[in-house]
Amino acid sequence: MIRATAALALLATCSVAVADGPRARELGVPFEGTPGALDAITDVAGVTVGQVTLIEDLPGGRKVRTGVTAVLPRGRQSLDTPAYGAWFPLNGNGEMTGSAWLEESGQLEGPVMLTNTYSVGVVRDAVIAWRIRAGAADSSGYWWSLPVVAETWDGDLNDINGFHVRPEHAWQALDQAKGGQVVEGNVGGGTGMSCHEFKCGIGTSSRSTMVGDRKYMLGALVQANYGTRETLRIAGVPVGQDIPVSDSANTAPPHGDSGSIIVVLATDAPLLPTQLKRVAKRASLALGRMGSFAGNGSGDMFIAFSTANAAAVNGGSFVQLESLGNDYLDPLFIAAVQATEEAIVNAMVAARDMHGQDGHFTPALPHDRLVELLKRYGRYAPPP
Amino acid sequence: MIRATAALALLATCSVAVADGPRARELGVPFEGTPGALDAITDVAGVTVGQVTLIEDLPGGRKVRTGVTAVLPRGRQSLDTPAYGAWFPLNGNGEMTGSAWLEESGQLEGPVMLTNTYSVGVVRDAVIAWRIRAGAADSSGYWWSLPVVAETWDGDLNDINGFHVRPEHAWQALDQAKGGQVVEGNVGGGTGMSCHEFKCGIGTSSRSTMVGDRKYMLGALVQANYGTRETLRIAGVPVGQDIPVSDSANTAPPHGDSGSIIVVLATDAPLLPTQLKRVAKRASLALGRMGSFAGNGSGDMFIAFSTANAAAVNGGSFVQLESLGNDYLDPLFIAAVQATEEAIVNAMVAARDMHGQDGHFTPALPHDRLVELLKRYGRYAPPP
Amino acid sequence: MIRATAALALLATCSVAVADGPRARELGVPFEGTPGALDAITDVAGVTVGQVTLIEDLPGGRKVRTGVTAVLPRGRQSLDTPAYGAWFPLNGNGEMTGSAWLEESGQLEGPVMLTNTYSVGVVRDAVIAWRIRAGAADSSGYWWSLPVVAETWDGDLNDINGFHVRPEHAWQALDQAKGGQVVEGNVGGGTGMSCHEFKCGIGTSSRSTMVGDRKYMLGALVQANYGTRETLRIAGVPVGQDIPVSDSANTAPPHGDSGSIIVVLATDAPLLPTQLKRVAKRASLALGRMGSFAGNGSGDMFIAFSTANAAAVNGGSFVQLESLGNDYLDPLFIAAVQATEEAIVNAMVAARDMHGQDGHFTPALPHDRLVELLKRYGRYAPPP
Amino acid sequence: MIRATAALALLATCSVAVADGPRARELGVPFEGTPGALDAITDVAGVTVGQVTLIEDLPGGRKVRTGVTAVLPRGRQSLDTPAYGAWFPLNGNGEMTGSAWLEESGQLEGPVMLTNTYSVGVVRDAVIAWRIRAGAADSSGYWWSLPVVAETWDGDLNDINGFHVRPEHAWQALDQAKGGQVVEGNVGGGTGMSCHEFKCGIGTSSRSTMVGDRKYMLGALVQANYGTRETLRIAGVPVGQDIPVSDSANTAPPHGDSGSIIVVLATDAPLLPTQLKRVAKRASLALGRMGSFAGNGSGDMFIAFSTANAAAVNGGSFVQLESLGNDYLDPLFIAAVQATEEAIVNAMVAARDMHGQDGHFTPALPHDRLVELLKRYGRYAPPP
Repeated sequence: MIRATAALALLATCSVAVADGPRARELGVPFEGTPGALDAITDVAGVTVGQVTLIEDLPGGRKVRTGVTAVLPRGRQSLDTPAYGAWFPLNGNGEMTGSAWLEESGQLEGPVMLTNTYSVGVVRDAVIAWRIRAGAADSSGYWWSLPVVAETWDGDLNDINGFHVRPEHAWQALDQAKGGQVVEGNVGGGTGMSCHEFKCGIGTSSRSTMVGDRKYMLGALVQANYGTRETLRIAGVPVGQDIPVSDSANTAPPHGDSGSIIVVLATDAPLLPTQLKRVAKRASLALGRMGSFAGNGSGDMFIAFSTANAAAVNGGSFVQLESLGNDYLDPLFIAAVQATEEAIVNAMVAARDMHGQDGHFTPALPHDRLVELLKRYGRYAPPP
Repeated sequence: MIRATAALALLATCSVAVADGPRARELGVPFEGTPGALDAITDVAGVTVGQVTLIEDLPGGRKVRTGVTAVLPRGRQSLDTPAYGAWFPLNGNGEMTGSAWLEESGQLEGPVMLTNTYSVGVVRDAVIAWRIRAGAADSSGYWWSLPVVAETWDGDLNDINGFHVRPEHAWQALDQAKGGQVVEGNVGGGTGMSCHEFKCGIGTSSRSTMVGDRKYMLGALVQANYGTRETLRIAGVPVGQDIPVSDSANTAPPHGDSGSIIVVLATDAPLLPTQLKRVAKRASLALGRMGSFAGNGSGDMFIAFSTANAAAVNGGSFVQLESLGNDYLDPLFIAAVQATEEAIVNAMVAARDMHGQDGHFTPALPHDRLVELLKRYGRYAPPP
Repeated sequence: MIRATAALALLATCSVAVADGPRARELGVPFEGTPGALDAITDVAGVTVGQVTLIEDLPGGRKVRTGVTAVLPRGRQSLDTPAYGAWFPLNGNGEMTGSAWLEESGQLEGPVMLTNTYSVGVVRDAVIAWRIRAGAADSSGYWWSLPVVAETWDGDLNDINGFHVRPEHAWQALDQAKGGQVVEGNVGGGTGMSCHEFKCGIGTSSRSTMVGDRKYMLGALVQANYGTRETLRIAGVPVGQDIPVSDSANTAPPHGDSGSIIVVLATDAPLLPTQLKRVAKRASLALGRMGSFAGNGSGDMFIAFSTANAAAVNGGSFVQLESLGNDYLDPLFIAAVQATEEAIVNAMVAARDMHGQDGHFTPALPHDRLVELLKRYGRYAPPP
Repeated sequence: MIRATAALALLATCSVAVADGPRARELGVPFEGTPGALDAITDVAGVTVGQVTLIEDLPGGRKVRTGVTAVLPRGRQSLDTPAYGAWFPLNGNGEMTGSAWLEESGQLEGPVMLTNTYSVGVVRDAVIAWRIRAGAADSSGYWWSLPVVAETWDGDLNDINGFHVRPEHAWQALDQAKGGQVVEGNVGGGTGMSCHEFKCGIGTSSRSTMVGDRKYMLGALVQANYGTRETLRIAGVPVGQDIPVSDSANTAPPHGDSGSIIVVLATDAPLLPTQLKRVAKRASLALGRMGSFAGNGSGDMFIAFSTANAAAVNGGSFVQLESLGNDYLDPLFIAAVQATEEAIVNAMVAARDMHGQDGHFTPALPHDRLVELLKRYGRYAPPP
């Protein structure tokens, strides 16, 4: 069994490797809009991300390729202060625990956790236990009792039947969550994931936008594991048609668009829950740009939250809050589409070739061929 | 064809007659909670109600028994200021135009109109025309272009195939809307309606409630046309079992629970759209108290709005608003159940016997027998 | 830590005790409709129920009062054959994992598991593990990977922070599930639950009904933990007003309607997923009859499934199935209201006084006083 | 006022003009998948389309540029036989009457009507009146009483405040509906519509697809009126960036993405209502491909129906039907994305320059520049 220390060691190694590679826009992929300083969900002030990556070859040929990613809307302050939130399932072939209360209350009470399909339960209960360990729960006793945990399925590369994620891994992800750069690719909950039959995983991006005379940030983080090769489009270029699977070295069995993608959208714009649901829905349009058809087997689920209105969400019977008029939301809708699109491409660009369970191999998207195709289709945007 | 003047004359007559009768609690029906001064939706400050009643016997045996009821969240100010709102369809066998935008925006932009099933369209377009007549529309040009119009089916007593509601009737209901007492029973959109196979129609009620140290009002207005006799319960008393249809003089053909009920809930509590949806849902529990099973043919649809936060809803890009914490909503949930329950019973108590189309006759709930049953089952609450 | 064997022993003891008591209709509570032979969800052919009850006083004053209840739509055949299904959250302050896929697919793929709030995760992953142990998963590898697990909160009487439910308990509940009589009250997932501030837990009931010339069964099983005393109505009798909490010996802290109720509805009628959602919604009306206002803190969630169409649900690309016309569903809607209502009252009648965590005590509904009230309000129905 | 005969004459003229132009794939736009014989929604056997186009310059400078499009799922048989159906609102800033019953029942009972925003009501009631004129309604009396009518806003080019659509226009569209070729562009409900700030209107397309060894057809018809220029992508080519509005001759005021699009999807595949909702949702992904961000002001609403299972939908209490396993739906999901994408581009390609109300002018997409851009970006697909 993997011990936490081993997992941490692997995480460190992995981070360095991944951080060395270029991101999508550095390769010349043209994106619209203006990213934040880090081009990451952590550009939204207060948002922290923690990731635990489990990569280990066990006796008996079992390959551990999985992990946990934690997104805390308000960092440690998330312990005591919820955030307005909402979700939207484009295709509900997946799990997002806590979604019923998120929908009903309009509040995200705690972190968003991402892991593999078979480990949702252990991570969920671990979040409650972590909150209890942190001190007395709220007076009602219910706070943090309906954690949000979402998943995608990594059973091609990971020994998913081995249930390798343990409570400690969730606790580490929570404890280590921090702002700043976010490691992308084969990391955290995304460790064993694939997109469009290329290796994939965690990706992130952000957009800075103006609503009236106010500046707001919107960030996206995806755990991407969806899509068939054939339909893949990047910046409008039919990459999937030009790099067919027959041209790649995939050895995992094909199973159509049965992967799933979780999109986490964060913003500091003071949106109401109804408005955040609208923002979450826009992730669908980014998937459309990528060529997804949201296959039957794909759990395409999106969650959005706002870090504004901390006092209101955490308040008493009578609270005061801020919001934006519906007529002024378009910049945020556009930002949601753009940031999700770039986060997905970032996940594909950052991911690395992976050998895993049952001799399966999933290759990364070849950077050189992507650049070549961008140029051939007149879409290459030279990095600055 | 009925001319507007005729309709007005009839309305006046009808109002007087109805206003003379007792209301449910005056008969001794026990209700929970504390009503507002009028025990009507108009106890919520600013809410106005206008009703046009069309009762006429036309040549050829056609019986007109229908009308229009208008509820304006902010009276004439509704022309320029929306209200936060939400809806919930317990059983969607009905129409509520405008519900998609209500759901998406969280705003009720204009009045709630109630009429018969075949006249939803004429009333809907008439609301837009009325707004255009009132002066230049907003700069966007869209305001009031998705009116909320709901219906129940009065084809047993009314010559519904005659399409007797005309734009002028909607305009009159809007023009005449006012605060104060609300006529109940065979009036407005409820003119030809029946509940539990007794004559029914429009009913209203309100509850005054405390949330923390603040006092809020919640009002209900129903256009009630649902239910089978057998399952009718009033204040827990099995009235339907003790006054079977075979004991009444009904001559309309029985068709099970295929009537429908529209419930309009208004409050001055500063609720967000997500919270108003929760309030709307609670009307379901009042129907449960009445013995409804929400039959396949019954369009049971509920809408709730808040008159608070006028500046926010009508505001610019950045707005400030007030709300209540979710943990403090129970008094409003209880009020919604209680006010809806009483509004339904009020509609039944206020309604009068009606002869209509095709020789159909629907008797009113006999007050004396209701009182007798309340006493027999130990539920009689002597009026003050 | 509780071992499985201890739990089983306790279960056996508990069952006998509970089985000895009268059920609600044996006390004289009047219900509508015709129950099945057992008046239980297991009257629906094929449905099996397994329950593991954990009651133990641990060193340090920790009181274990919790458990797991498993409902298998098709008994052991549930391993390989889904059932059409749907859910409806009246108030989403709760968890029902698997609901997104249930909603999307219209299929219930596996059992419905009930437990306490903090143990949803462990039970969820345990269901997947149990399926893996049972043999090779389906070729897609996804089957049973999104289990349905719902919960209510037993932290008043149970040491919920102790996380006493373990995978073995879920496996036992699944392994031991069988048809026949269902133990009610302080058992399984309902062990530590309370309703209307009386001790409560698991309850069940069924209705036999005719649709056209065909006979169908509908059964309900509830894990009931909702409601305030004041609003409690049984068969229309205001029990809560006549037996106030001040008259009971409750020592757990009051916290309004923050309990939750899970309703599981099963039928052999061949309903489509859209139709099953409609059936699930009708549980709301039963809660209305009981006096519930679906408080903010109450996770009131309902799930319905059909055991018909086994070949279709489990079929290939092209399948043939049976259904009922929407116009003919009313008997099933009525049955859903009636069976849910009786299941709740059965849970209250079967439950026994319980001492638990932190010295909390929750008394059972006193049978003698219930009978006295039924008689006083003219609602006593002498048992045959 | 426009008389019906005038409208018909205009329709004929318009049709000829439009039918003369090339369709998108004839210009060289590359699309995926295999279209049906007509590449139109009428490739789905039984589906008929009727359109009434109102183009007239009235005294006082009022410009009539509007109309009605009717889609009948089963042609004249739609009078007596519903179809399984479902809808999905990506952004609910629009109206689709009848959607509540469509959602609840899973059945589309009658035609889908498309018109302008202010004429939804007149068309809705006219559909009921048309059914009544066609003979005795069904025994329940409710059939066709909740018509589906959707809209987009043509107030830039059309004198929308003039309410020029009359019941006769709806009746004509219904009476004249037929199979075969469907006129696209400035026609029917799409007469005055614009997309991405180019003239737009009605467009259609279809896909032939295999599910297992069975061949199914899926067709799309759109009334397209959404989108900003800047984000327009056609086949991945950034057309909107390369043909900015400043380069066009638009004189209507810009108002962002506040247009709306209605997508009607028809298939002969035997899908259940839950499955049709999933198909409808996929239209979102086609909008993503086109560059839409579903602006706040855009009512993006999709409806899908199946012509299969006629006997079941129209049946008695017990019915037999066919369906497809969820695991086999991907070909239909892909077809929905592809057919919607092509229908939108067809609408843009077929539309012609239009002068309208208040001197507004909206230019058509210039075919030569589109071809030039397709070539520049390596996406030109020479027509056969």
